[in-house]
Amino acid sequence: MKLDRQTAWKAVESRLKKERYEHTERVVKTAIELAERNDADVYRAEFASILHDYAKYRDREEMRRWILKDHRLPKDLLDYHHELWHGPVGALLVERELGVNDAAILSAVSCHTTGKKNMSMLDKIVFLADYIEPGRKFPGVEDVRKAAESDLNEACLMASRNTIRFLMSKNQAVYPDTFHAYNDLLTKH
Amino acid sequence: MKLDRQTAWKAVESRLKKERYEHTERVVKTAIELAERNDADVYRAEFASILHDYAKYRDREEMRRWILKDHRLPKDLLDYHHELWHGPVGALLVERELGVNDAAILSAVSCHTTGKKNMSMLDKIVFLADYIEPGRKFPGVEDVRKAAESDLNEACLMASRNTIRFLMSKNQAVYPDTFHAYNDLLTKH
Repeated sequence: MKLDRQTAWKAVESRLKKERYEHTERVVKTAIELAERNDADVYRAEFASILHDYAKYRDREEMRRWILKDHRLPKDLLDYHHELWHGPVGALLVERELGVNDAAILSAVSCHTTGKKNMSMLDKIVFLADYIEPGRKFPGVEDVRKAAESDLNEACLMASRNTIRFLMSKNQAVYPDTFHAYNDLLTKH
Repeated sequence: MKLDRQTAWKAVESRLKKERYEHTERVVKTAIELAERNDADVYRAEFASILHDYAKYRDREEMRRWILKDHRLPKDLLDYHHELWHGPVGALLVERELGVNDAAILSAVSCHTTGKKNMSMLDKIVFLADYIEPGRKFPGVEDVRKAAESDLNEACLMASRNTIRFLMSKNQAVYPDTFHAYNDLLTKH
């Protein structure tokens, strides 16, 4: 991959608000810890988590255009909350704008909010690091942190279940990939 | 449709245990009430609910063979709990064995346990009647009964949400059609 660490950080620093940049720093630290603890690829965990929120503040109309334009982006995203768009669009944009062409990293950036069926270990690490980084304070997060110390699958299952419960309690739609993640992680339970 | 009322009842009586037959009687009564209250097709509501559990006690291996054999039955059913099979297999068998060829009735029989995206009014009536008939005692059913008095969509939404919550609390998989029903009913909310 052409991208070096410093360039990656600069690329996200210029695109994120201060608190989101600090969130990213905590996600990276958490992801590296998870990768080390699970004998995963620490290098990819670091880069994927540096880049995971790359498109967080991208203009909503620009994201909509990318979703409509790029054949790899699922069109049904447009039927769901725009908060979900920055993962898949972010994966596309770090490829186009930063030259990141590592499929494993792009996958982890893409599914970090929703999860998906058949997540790789890297997908799980970034999904989970984003969920449990020390700045997160919502109900249930402590249980997921605890589970993440010993079982990535169990922790991802808990996180996806919490997310579904939370969205249903707010009368919000649940993106199908989140359901697929839940069902799929159950079978690995 | 060739099937008359008496033959339909006899067909299910011979195939259901006593308590399930009595459940069916209550579902039929509830479905007729819902149909009348919502200006729906009372005749179809009656027949679909008489037949909804037709395959409830069919041998599991026979159901598995039908799912594998008939191209209209989704194969992914086999990845989920066999309790979900009797709806889709029941629709197939009332067609084959009783000559029921009314697509609206077959659809309502098929999706009565899981729900699905884009349910017709008849689908909703049978799904809901099965959920709220007076013999049902589980937590939350009274709220769904209440909602069903004035709003079929809202009541179906509550039922599908309760079902998802219940399954998740038991660490059980949720058949995708149930999620699709939830998401879809939300948009009609």
